[in-house]
Amino acid sequence: MSYNLLKGKRGIVFGALNEQSIAWKIAERAVEEGATITLSNTPVAVRMGDISTLGDKLHCEVIPADATNVEELTNVFTRSMDILGGKIDFLLHSIGMSPNVRKRRTYDDLDYDMLNKTLDISAISFHKMIQVAKNLDAMAEYGSIVALTYVAAQRTFYGYNDMADAKALLESIARSFGYIYGRDHSVRINTLSQSPTMTTAGSGVKGIDKLFDFADRMSPLGNASAEECADYCITLFSDLTRKVTMQNLYHDGGFSSIGMSLRAMGMYEKGFNLDDYKNEAGNVVYG
Amino acid sequence: MSYNLLKGKRGIVFGALNEQSIAWKIAERAVEEGATITLSNTPVAVRMGDISTLGDKLHCEVIPADATNVEELTNVFTRSMDILGGKIDFLLHSIGMSPNVRKRRTYDDLDYDMLNKTLDISAISFHKMIQVAKNLDAMAEYGSIVALTYVAAQRTFYGYNDMADAKALLESIARSFGYIYGRDHSVRINTLSQSPTMTTAGSGVKGIDKLFDFADRMSPLGNASAEECADYCITLFSDLTRKVTMQNLYHDGGFSSIGMSLRAMGMYEKGFNLDDYKNEAGNVVYG
Amino acid sequence: MSYNLLKGKRGIVFGALNEQSIAWKIAERAVEEGATITLSNTPVAVRMGDISTLGDKLHCEVIPADATNVEELTNVFTRSMDILGGKIDFLLHSIGMSPNVRKRRTYDDLDYDMLNKTLDISAISFHKMIQVAKNLDAMAEYGSIVALTYVAAQRTFYGYNDMADAKALLESIARSFGYIYGRDHSVRINTLSQSPTMTTAGSGVKGIDKLFDFADRMSPLGNASAEECADYCITLFSDLTRKVTMQNLYHDGGFSSIGMSLRAMGMYEKGFNLDDYKNEAGNVVYG
Amino acid sequence: MSYNLLKGKRGIVFGALNEQSIAWKIAERAVEEGATITLSNTPVAVRMGDISTLGDKLHCEVIPADATNVEELTNVFTRSMDILGGKIDFLLHSIGMSPNVRKRRTYDDLDYDMLNKTLDISAISFHKMIQVAKNLDAMAEYGSIVALTYVAAQRTFYGYNDMADAKALLESIARSFGYIYGRDHSVRINTLSQSPTMTTAGSGVKGIDKLFDFADRMSPLGNASAEECADYCITLFSDLTRKVTMQNLYHDGGFSSIGMSLRAMGMYEKGFNLDDYKNEAGNVVYG
Repeated sequence: MSYNLLKGKRGIVFGALNEQSIAWKIAERAVEEGATITLSNTPVAVRMGDISTLGDKLHCEVIPADATNVEELTNVFTRSMDILGGKIDFLLHSIGMSPNVRKRRTYDDLDYDMLNKTLDISAISFHKMIQVAKNLDAMAEYGSIVALTYVAAQRTFYGYNDMADAKALLESIARSFGYIYGRDHSVRINTLSQSPTMTTAGSGVKGIDKLFDFADRMSPLGNASAEECADYCITLFSDLTRKVTMQNLYHDGGFSSIGMSLRAMGMYEKGFNLDDYKNEAGNVVYG
Repeated sequence: MSYNLLKGKRGIVFGALNEQSIAWKIAERAVEEGATITLSNTPVAVRMGDISTLGDKLHCEVIPADATNVEELTNVFTRSMDILGGKIDFLLHSIGMSPNVRKRRTYDDLDYDMLNKTLDISAISFHKMIQVAKNLDAMAEYGSIVALTYVAAQRTFYGYNDMADAKALLESIARSFGYIYGRDHSVRINTLSQSPTMTTAGSGVKGIDKLFDFADRMSPLGNASAEECADYCITLFSDLTRKVTMQNLYHDGGFSSIGMSLRAMGMYEKGFNLDDYKNEAGNVVYG
Repeated sequence: MSYNLLKGKRGIVFGALNEQSIAWKIAERAVEEGATITLSNTPVAVRMGDISTLGDKLHCEVIPADATNVEELTNVFTRSMDILGGKIDFLLHSIGMSPNVRKRRTYDDLDYDMLNKTLDISAISFHKMIQVAKNLDAMAEYGSIVALTYVAAQRTFYGYNDMADAKALLESIARSFGYIYGRDHSVRINTLSQSPTMTTAGSGVKGIDKLFDFADRMSPLGNASAEECADYCITLFSDLTRKVTMQNLYHDGGFSSIGMSLRAMGMYEKGFNLDDYKNEAGNVVYG
Repeated sequence: MSYNLLKGKRGIVFGALNEQSIAWKIAERAVEEGATITLSNTPVAVRMGDISTLGDKLHCEVIPADATNVEELTNVFTRSMDILGGKIDFLLHSIGMSPNVRKRRTYDDLDYDMLNKTLDISAISFHKMIQVAKNLDAMAEYGSIVALTYVAAQRTFYGYNDMADAKALLESIARSFGYIYGRDHSVRINTLSQSPTMTTAGSGVKGIDKLFDFADRMSPLGNASAEECADYCITLFSDLTRKVTMQNLYHDGGFSSIGMSLRAMGMYEKGFNLDDYKNEAGNVVYG
C-alpha cells in the first residue's frame, strides 16, 4: 500500500546487500511511496550481493563506492544528482562492520588497526557522506538524513564489542552535524535505533538468536521487523517530520524502555531449574 | 495536502480549546488524513472556547468531560465508539493546568491541594483515560495513544514550576501503561515533547516570549509550530509507526540535543554590554 | 572504619525501620563518620519497628512523624535543630509505599485514591520535607539532600506498578527543587538509584528474588548491598561532592548501563531447554 | 584537609600539564589523601610543562609516554607497579586534543587524518590504557578508573567540534570496558563530566569565556572548579564507591539538568535591548 509520502523526492540508499537487508526494504518502500533513488554499496558487495537485482526491480542505478573514500562518495552524490535530476531529499546510511568481531578478537584484546577500520566504516563514513554532500550542496533544503543504529550505543551487550563504540560515535556525529546542517540548510539528521534483526550482518553477531529471543520477549510489541523499520523510515524521510532532528529514535517494540517484562522473566526463571552454572567463567569466546 | 494516512481510522482528541491549540491542529489534520473523530474537553472549556466551531467545521461531535472523572471519561469512550461505529484507533491527550502557576505560588511555596490538582489534571487524567479505555476494550489492536509533553520533564526551566513534575509523571505513565497495553493488545503509547508553542496555555507561562526566543535560537531548525506538531502526530497515529512505543519523542527543531548554539550565544553575549545585574535576586515572582 | 567525613555535621534520616533498611545502614555509617543525627519514621513504624533500638545504639533521638503531614514535618525539623544544636547539613529520604501494590491492584486496575496515597507517601513527601526545611531556613549552606530511588523510574519492570510513577515524580522533584534550593542556599539535591535490595520493603515486591538474581547477573559488579549504599551515601553527604546536584546517581554495580551480560544470558538460555511457555498469558497476578 | 580516603592506595595520573590542570589538582589531592602515585604525560608536555615541578612537590616520578602508544603505556604501568610496589588502585585519564580545532577546521570541513588523531588521542588512548592494564593484570581488585569528559558528548555546543564525538566515544569505551573489567576483576570505570574549566586546554576552546559565563549562570551552584573536581574524583577512587560503574557522572553545579535558569535568562534578555542581529550568519569562524 502506498500513501505517496515521498512523491517526487530523490534519495540515496547506502548499504543494501540482499533481501534480508533493512536498507533493501527501505529502498523498496521509498520507491513504493513515490521516490526515485540510487543505490550504493562497496564494489565487493555489489559483486557478491544481490543489489543489482534490486536495482533492476526498482529501475534504479547502483553506484559502487567505498563509503570511507571521499572521492568515491563524491562520485555517488554527483552521479545521483545527475541521474535523479536534482538535489537529494533523503539519505540512508546502513553501514557497519567490525574486523575485530569477524576475527573474534575480544573487547579486551582489540587490534587497534581493526578498531580504526570499525570506526571508519561504521561511523566516520557517515561524517564523510554528509560532509561531501554539504560541500557539493547536494541536499535539498529540508532534506532528511537517517543512519541505522542499535541500543548497544547506550547499554553494553556482551559480544557486540567495538561495534557499540562505533554506534556511539555514529550517534554523536548525527547530533554534531545535525546542528550544522540544520542551521545552514534546514537538513535534519537522525539515527534510528532498530530491534535486533535477522539480516546477514545481524546473523554474524554471536548468540544473536538468543538475544533476538530475549529482546522479543522483553518488548511489549515484540521485535520490530525490517519491513516495519522501512515503514518508520519513510515517515522520517517525509515532509511530516521536518522539525525532528538530532534525535536517536528507538524503533524496537518498547525494548529500550523495559527493565524486565513478565514474558522474559518467565523464560529466565526456568534457568533456575537447572543446576549448573559452573562453567560460566569458562569458555568465554568473546565479550 | 492529504496522504490518506488515517483513512478509515477512528480517533478521540482531548484538549482542543481554540484555533491556537495544538490539539485543534491535530484534529484538523487527522480529519484531513481521512479519520473520523470525536472531540472532548471540560464542560467549561466547551462553553467558553471555540471547540463547537471546530466540531461544526470537522462534522464531528463534541463530548464534554472532566478528564479527571472516570465516569465522564467512560461516557466519552462509549459514545465515541457508538458515534464512530467501532473501536478507537488513536487518542490524543493534550491536557495540562497548574493552579499553583495560576495563583503564582512559587515552587518553594506550593499549595499541596493545588499540586494534587496539577497532577490529577495534567498527568493522572492520562492514566484514567487509558484505564477506562482498556476496561471497555475500547482501543483497536495496534491502536496509538499520544500525550503532549515538554522537555521540562527532563531539565528544569525556571517558572515552569510543578508542571515539570506533572510532565515527568505523565511520561512515566506512558511507559508503565505502554508495557501493559502493548503486551495485551499491541496498543502503543508515546509522549510527544513539543517546542514551546504560543497557545493559550503556553502564553500563560511567565516569560514565555523570552523562552520562545531562546528556544528558537538554540534549535537549528527553529521552534516547531503547532501545524508541524500536527503533521508529526499524524505519523504517530498512522500504521507506519506500529513498533514505536514507550518513547518520549522530541519534536523541537533539535533543541533537546543542543547545549549552546551560535545564534543563542550571539544574543546572550550582548547582555555583557550592559552593566546592571544587581536586581537579579530582586523581583523574582516565581521560579 | 571511619574517615571522619561527616565530622561535626548534623543530619536527619527518614525511613529506617529495621536492621535490613538501607536508611538504618546509612544512619549507622553517618554516625560512624562523625555526624550527629535524628531519626524519623511514621508513628506506626516507630511502634512496630526496631527504630528505637537504633536510636539507643546511636544515642540519637527518634521523632515520629507522618512524612505527608506538613505540621509533623515542621516538628521534625524544629526539634532536630534544637537537639542537634544548629542547622541541618544532610537529609535522607528513604520512604515509599504503594497501597495498590499491597492490595494487589494491577496497573491497569489502579484505585485512584490509592494512587494518590502512593504519590503522596513516596514522592510528594519529599517536596513537603524540603519546602518545610526551606521555609524554616533549616538547611545549612552547602547542605546535601538525598532520596533513594530505583531504575524503574526510567524503565518498566513488571510488577513494580505505580511505584515506578512515584519514583519518576520523586526524581523530578529532586531536579525542580534542586534548582531553587541550590540557587538560593547552595543546597544540593540528588537521588540515589540503588540495586534491588532485600529489605522489608523490597521483599514485598512480587518476584523480587528472581529480579534480584537477574539484576545480580546483569551487573558486572553484582548488586550493591545496603552497606555499600550507605558508604556511597556518605560521600554524597560529605563536603567532597558540593557541586553535584540535580542528578540521579546509579549505585547498582553497572546494571543501568547493561543491555545483556554473559552471565544473565547464561541463565536465560537454560530456559530454552524446557518446552512449556503456554501458560504465559495465564495467571498474571499483576503487571 | 585530609580524610585519609586513599591511604595505602597506588595510582597513576595521566594528563597533568600545569597548575591549572584538573589532573594536577587531582594528583595533589590524591597524595594529600594518602595515596602514592606516578604521573604521566607526553614527552613534549613533560619538557614544556611544569609537571616535573609537580613531581618534585609530590615526591613522585614522572614517566613520559605518548598515550596512543601501546608500548609506552606498557612501560608506564610496569614502571609504576615497580615504583609504587604493587598493583594500581586508581587511574585518571585527563587527555584530549583536537588538531581540527587547533587548525580551525570547522566541523563541516574536517580533515580526516586529524579526526583520527582527535579520536586516538582523546578516546582510543583510554581503551589502550585499560587494555594494557588488563593484559598486565596491573589493576588491583576493586580498582577505580576515571576519565574526564564534557556534556558536549550528549548535547552539541557550537565550536566544540570533533571533540564532542571524541568524548562520546570515550564514554562508550568506559561502558564497554567497564562491563568486561568489572566482571573479570571488579574494577570500575566511570567518566566524570566536568563544568567548563579555565585550564590551558579549556582556554583554547573558542568563546570559552562566554560559555563559561553562560554555564555558570545556568548552574544553580555555579560552575565546579578544578579543586572541587579533585575532591569529587577522590570519592570515586575511594572504597566508598565500589559499586558505581559504567556511569557518566556530572560534576557541574546542576548545569546538565537545567533547561533555563533565571540568572542566565536575565543576561539573555538584555540582548533584546540591542538592535543588531544582522551579522549573525556572518563571520562564523567555526561551528
